[in-house]
Amino acid sequence: MALVSALTPVFVAVLCVVIAFIFKNRRAGESESREKLSPAAGSSSRPWVDEDLEDDTCVSAKDHEDDDWAVEETENLLHVPYTPPRYSVEEMLERSQQFYKLLNQRRSVRFISPEPVPREVIDNVIWAAGTAPSGAHTEPWTFVVVEDAETKHKIREIVEEEEEINYKQRMGDKWVHDLRRLRTNWVKEYLDTAPYLILVFKQTYGILPNGKKKTHYYNEISVSISCGLLLAALQNVGLVTVTSTPLNCGPKLRVLLQRPANEKLLMLLPVGFPAPDATVPDLSRKDLSDIMVFV
Amino acid sequence: MALVSALTPVFVAVLCVVIAFIFKNRRAGESESREKLSPAAGSSSRPWVDEDLEDDTCVSAKDHEDDDWAVEETENLLHVPYTPPRYSVEEMLERSQQFYKLLNQRRSVRFISPEPVPREVIDNVIWAAGTAPSGAHTEPWTFVVVEDAETKHKIREIVEEEEEINYKQRMGDKWVHDLRRLRTNWVKEYLDTAPYLILVFKQTYGILPNGKKKTHYYNEISVSISCGLLLAALQNVGLVTVTSTPLNCGPKLRVLLQRPANEKLLMLLPVGFPAPDATVPDLSRKDLSDIMVFV
Repeated sequence: MALVSALTPVFVAVLCVVIAFIFKNRRAGESESREKLSPAAGSSSRPWVDEDLEDDTCVSAKDHEDDDWAVEETENLLHVPYTPPRYSVEEMLERSQQFYKLLNQRRSVRFISPEPVPREVIDNVIWAAGTAPSGAHTEPWTFVVVEDAETKHKIREIVEEEEEINYKQRMGDKWVHDLRRLRTNWVKEYLDTAPYLILVFKQTYGILPNGKKKTHYYNEISVSISCGLLLAALQNVGLVTVTSTPLNCGPKLRVLLQRPANEKLLMLLPVGFPAPDATVPDLSRKDLSDIMVFV
Repeated sequence: MALVSALTPVFVAVLCVVIAFIFKNRRAGESESREKLSPAAGSSSRPWVDEDLEDDTCVSAKDHEDDDWAVEETENLLHVPYTPPRYSVEEMLERSQQFYKLLNQRRSVRFISPEPVPREVIDNVIWAAGTAPSGAHTEPWTFVVVEDAETKHKIREIVEEEEEINYKQRMGDKWVHDLRRLRTNWVKEYLDTAPYLILVFKQTYGILPNGKKKTHYYNEISVSISCGLLLAALQNVGLVTVTSTPLNCGPKLRVLLQRPANEKLLMLLPVGFPAPDATVPDLSRKDLSDIMVFV
């Protein structure tokens, strides 16, 4: 008995180390599998917010495959000759200047006219966005175009409700006295007035023929690139938008729009003609020497 | 003494629970602060790989501010009228169709001609990329354009060396017998032959006047959008590229190109005319009904 008592401290120490070790490994295993299976988790019954704020590029960032976006599925496809249009040096200079001028006129506009926009034009800009490259050619994007007034208003209610929560959470922070900014954030009239709202969803995983989930690596980068093409296409026809990323509204909006669990809202773009009295902040862009380094 | 012995099991149990609890909280605290401080960590002396594979959109995803990319710094700027060019319905339809046709001709091309491309054209496409919107107008992009043959070759060595590591790590995986794919991944001749390599870096944080670091929220989404504009600008002048995201080569390439710690390589784009014998996999894109949902 005395022996046992004498050994008790050692016994305790060893047991604790063992338990701590087991505990550590269990946690490590958990977080790892959570990473690996995050897309799958999207379909579980976890709270919306956990599910949606999980950024799937965290998975892709740890993945070393397909780093040149090699089109795995198409490696066995026939390769065909590729001969795009060829322009003279003069044409290239002229076209590159004109394209820059066009894009440089683009501004984020929050004052959008309710006047209608031809549906065919919207179809064409979505077609254009769909030409973006994507990891392994997964084309992991869904563009939900909302024209229905009632649905637009429900979207506005969800977004503004979320803004209110953000605002209350922010009470006392550096923006609390910035009423101007507050107004800007609080009221999103354009969600009602814009003839179309384009909600861009990233498909974080796909379903394989065998029913298993397949992670779409680089899905956020791919969908963001397609949004770049979308912005260019809109500017090209004289329509305006404002790029918004209402990540915290994603779950409710996804439910409202009946999108599947593998789709996460990446951006919300109100689209239309600028209001006659539309204004934009008088800001400038960086100079070429500030964004380009030549080696 | 007998009492102590009798209490030993209880004593052990309580001690272990306490230790496990402490341990759990310590780990939670760690991971939390790691998330919050990830951009700052970029400048610390942690191993390159840890530093670079850390995806900063994980930070932005948890941030609820600037969710409509409100231009904080410019809230106090004068607002000026905005009147972009206005087109007739017929013009809009025509322009939207032509733009879609242009972009739909774009393909990722890995066979690039060494023939020179006018530097002014490259300047203009970078100008165009720089017109992208960005969270709080931070313009968090740096485009490193490499024309120097020696530097291009060093870049190729770094990328192919990394591919070799990936390959060895992959031994035995599903691609091990896919020699075709292997060859595609292994040899990146275009890194030598393309007249220009454009390495796109995302600035994960900026430096405030007071010297403190300022996280650039949505920097990865913003830079990806600008890459979309860059791809459109290249296609518009008849140049080709292939979108690659060599995340695992980022640290070495950043050192080679002497970029600061707040810049992470997001994409590497070889740019030039397609080789006369260039081929692309014979794949097709999704139909509009597969990427657009109308409400």
